[in-house]
Amino acid sequence: MEIQLLCIGKTDRSFWAEALEMYEKRLQHYVKFSIRYLADVKTSKKSDPSKIKLEETKLLLEKIKPGDMVILLDEKGKMFNSAEFSKEIENQMNSGKKKVLFVIGGAYGFSEELYQKFPERMALSKMTFSHQMVRLFFCEQLYRAYTIINNHPYHNA
Amino acid sequence: MEIQLLCIGKTDRSFWAEALEMYEKRLQHYVKFSIRYLADVKTSKKSDPSKIKLEETKLLLEKIKPGDMVILLDEKGKMFNSAEFSKEIENQMNSGKKKVLFVIGGAYGFSEELYQKFPERMALSKMTFSHQMVRLFFCEQLYRAYTIINNHPYHNA
Repeated sequence: MEIQLLCIGKTDRSFWAEALEMYEKRLQHYVKFSIRYLADVKTSKKSDPSKIKLEETKLLLEKIKPGDMVILLDEKGKMFNSAEFSKEIENQMNSGKKKVLFVIGGAYGFSEELYQKFPERMALSKMTFSHQMVRLFFCEQLYRAYTIINNHPYHNA
Repeated sequence: MEIQLLCIGKTDRSFWAEALEMYEKRLQHYVKFSIRYLADVKTSKKSDPSKIKLEETKLLLEKIKPGDMVILLDEKGKMFNSAEFSKEIENQMNSGKKKVLFVIGGAYGFSEELYQKFPERMALSKMTFSHQMVRLFFCEQLYRAYTIINNHPYHNA
């Protein structure tokens, strides 16, 4: 199984990139994992959020292939603790899916179209994070999930 | 009001330190905020977790003064969303407390003594994070809380 984190907008500070790289590298021991950054939709102050969402939806849909399992990271999604999340990952592994995509939306969230196409949603916390933060948060949890699945000690760093 | 984040163990990678510094600096616009890192308790593989917790409790209690408001960051604590957390911070500001301490425990969690002395607990998520991660997570949320209180746009970075 391959896992990809799909997100919109670049990593804007080098420390975020370094932290993400650390987890991306560590995850390779367990799973084919990558982060795919889609280009920000060009906006001006006058841009209509619904138009931006429409553009972002188009970009995201281009990257999703039939048969991909898609899970939206969304504040209103299901909350797991770390052990439950590792079980969820195990279930995905056993389901025979070739690719699981976790998707982080843009600043205005997901469009109705995406919600309807992909009913699976997961929340990392009740709290709202910056887009940079949520990427890191997710990668850490995915790494933690694999250490739980494999009964490996967690290397806290 | 002054806010301090009290945690055990150093920041182990420069990117964590850089990220924390960014939020620490930004928070100064709103509140006197600092992070205090207590030295790790020296341990060997044979160390008894209960002994480590005892040592850590001693270290933490030395840093807490009578009259300080203490909130333990604990998985079993109350969960807030970001707006609720900002309300909580506002309530603390209005309570007349001079200093609010948020405390992150060591690898084995808090001792019974600390739980009994400080009943206020807050959870950032159902998920478990690395110690490095939880610090960053907290600082981002505190910064977000102040931008909400002051009705400022959140600078996502």
